[in-house]
Amino acid sequence: MTKPPLITLLTDFGLRDHYVAAMKGSVLSICPDASLVDVTHEITPYSITEAAYTLSQTWSCFPAGTIHIVVVDPGVGSARRPLLIEAGGHFFIGPDNGVFGMVLAGRTDWTARQITDARYFRPEVSQTFHGRDLFAPVAAHLATGVMSSQFGDTCQDLVPLENANPVQTGPHTWQGTVLTVDRFGNIITSFSWNDFANIAARRFEMRAGELIACRYYPHYDEAGPGEPFLLRGSGDYVEVSLNQGDAARAAQVRTGSPVKFRWI
Amino acid sequence: MTKPPLITLLTDFGLRDHYVAAMKGSVLSICPDASLVDVTHEITPYSITEAAYTLSQTWSCFPAGTIHIVVVDPGVGSARRPLLIEAGGHFFIGPDNGVFGMVLAGRTDWTARQITDARYFRPEVSQTFHGRDLFAPVAAHLATGVMSSQFGDTCQDLVPLENANPVQTGPHTWQGTVLTVDRFGNIITSFSWNDFANIAARRFEMRAGELIACRYYPHYDEAGPGEPFLLRGSGDYVEVSLNQGDAARAAQVRTGSPVKFRWI
Amino acid sequence: MTKPPLITLLTDFGLRDHYVAAMKGSVLSICPDASLVDVTHEITPYSITEAAYTLSQTWSCFPAGTIHIVVVDPGVGSARRPLLIEAGGHFFIGPDNGVFGMVLAGRTDWTARQITDARYFRPEVSQTFHGRDLFAPVAAHLATGVMSSQFGDTCQDLVPLENANPVQTGPHTWQGTVLTVDRFGNIITSFSWNDFANIAARRFEMRAGELIACRYYPHYDEAGPGEPFLLRGSGDYVEVSLNQGDAARAAQVRTGSPVKFRWI
Repeated sequence: MTKPPLITLLTDFGLRDHYVAAMKGSVLSICPDASLVDVTHEITPYSITEAAYTLSQTWSCFPAGTIHIVVVDPGVGSARRPLLIEAGGHFFIGPDNGVFGMVLAGRTDWTARQITDARYFRPEVSQTFHGRDLFAPVAAHLATGVMSSQFGDTCQDLVPLENANPVQTGPHTWQGTVLTVDRFGNIITSFSWNDFANIAARRFEMRAGELIACRYYPHYDEAGPGEPFLLRGSGDYVEVSLNQGDAARAAQVRTGSPVKFRWI
Repeated sequence: MTKPPLITLLTDFGLRDHYVAAMKGSVLSICPDASLVDVTHEITPYSITEAAYTLSQTWSCFPAGTIHIVVVDPGVGSARRPLLIEAGGHFFIGPDNGVFGMVLAGRTDWTARQITDARYFRPEVSQTFHGRDLFAPVAAHLATGVMSSQFGDTCQDLVPLENANPVQTGPHTWQGTVLTVDRFGNIITSFSWNDFANIAARRFEMRAGELIACRYYPHYDEAGPGEPFLLRGSGDYVEVSLNQGDAARAAQVRTGSPVKFRWI
Repeated sequence: MTKPPLITLLTDFGLRDHYVAAMKGSVLSICPDASLVDVTHEITPYSITEAAYTLSQTWSCFPAGTIHIVVVDPGVGSARRPLLIEAGGHFFIGPDNGVFGMVLAGRTDWTARQITDARYFRPEVSQTFHGRDLFAPVAAHLATGVMSSQFGDTCQDLVPLENANPVQTGPHTWQGTVLTVDRFGNIITSFSWNDFANIAARRFEMRAGELIACRYYPHYDEAGPGEPFLLRGSGDYVEVSLNQGDAARAAQVRTGSPVKFRWI
């Protein structure tokens, strides 16, 4: 555990409502010296893929021992399992719906537990707000030193993440998706840089909605005005960008839209 | 007081501007080890009712001794009184305009003081920014251990909160209001669950703008697509929802809009 | 240095994306007990003037020894210099593009250094994300006690801030700009109160887009409904306001729009 205990929060609750603060109060009532960091609360509502991507881009920036709470949970109140996962020296708490899929991809060093011990929940657990009533107090108890094994038994068969990787659709063609659109309108695709790094050297075409990009540039400011181009994003996914323009708006795409790639 | 001192902030200042940060700097200059938690800064501008609701949903999630600053203050610069209230083991600081009305409703264990001692203000108090110049430094001095009684004399006749409860308009009919709309478009009404809990068993009609809901479901996912329904919100008010849809947009309502209920 | 070390963050990254959290993780991995305060992340993308104004309104609210990170950085990846500045007992970290211009205006007590020592960077520095890879870790190392002089040599010829002051265009006329628009639609102009304080006593005309204001009022609520008027903003700039209305929308102006003033 870090000292002070460090807990991050990632939700689709937005910042207008009281939900995030209620979760924080729930943590601080149990563990008053916890240090709380918002990852974001502006995940597109119910978008598990966007949350999975965002988590994958941030968790390893934090020190080992950090506890990451993720509440993007369209199935709240149904039978989906609440999970506590240990991986890479970090702790992850949230629903079993694939949201931890990118953290766990390619890893074998993880342990998942189904959270069942109601001693670590709020006295009354609502049907609609497990963030406050279950995930936050579990994180806080973990932060105060309760052993992982106290929260429930290990489990294996986690729900997989949909749409995580591009699918090859022909000898030279792939279809992926928009993982997310950032504030500047950059389109973060599901094409990982490592698999497509030779776009720096070969001819290609990437089609995202109304935009077709045929060029790669290492820096934003090397592209001409209005020219769509590909970039190696800071998270090592291929991004579609417009220099000082809004690529997603020009392309008319959003989280989950298809993206097509081919070598020419 | 909690340790470290815990101070929450609830305003209509938004997150674009420097106002919230100026308040935080003002606190930390006096009490550097304060732990600051944002409740929200996205209250509909000047909406005292929405702020009162949001505060009512969060304050008791925090540990006893927490200091809650609320600055939704259309009367800033006029003669409205600045208040320091102790209630339920917590401290509340903000203008006397009804914003603490839901916290105090039904309680007798509270003490309110009119803040008057300028020793605890910033040296120069602006006409337009009491959040930074008065409320934040008072909270910080309180957090460092100054006694409540030092800030001013007790007072009684607080300004009441308007529109807090539905009004009965006939033998079987009530009119309430929209307290707030959450990020998912759920319409949080001023109908408290405890007063209307038998919607789970009786026939009724709830009319919010263009939507008419005649069904109650305990979970979001039990409703059909596009079907408006009532739900017990996590804050124990009746909510009007659409499963994975935006009820407020469909209804064309917002904070303060009327909501009509009748038993059939 | 403050205790705990206090670090503020001011960016145009927005709150939807993972960028701010990645910066925070980068800080906390090096300095786990740092206390992080968001100034804002909603600066109009690439608007150096708006960031400079926002910083100027907040930095001195924080205690001496605070470290302020500013990342509004259209030139990231190009040759622009990364800076560490000491001024007024505070530390400032960010790109050399004028963003510190309002803090330094009229001061002589500052020292600027070009950050060059890669020992204080993340092991791999991306082309697009110096906030996470360079500015955040430098701030964290500074917070842990590394001496300023370790980060690089002093430098003098900083890039100046454009559009910081109104230009006199005739015997009685000036042209300035919109520094920013706040959440309530108040138009914060580049006219400093100290230079134009006699608007309280003389006849004048201020033209911002479609609005013409000929009156000054000390309080918001003294203006009639729909009447544009001037106000002394909390930051000591002249503001154009509408009582409980959105002046910027009515005027159709935004950050960077021209504003014209004349004495009559």
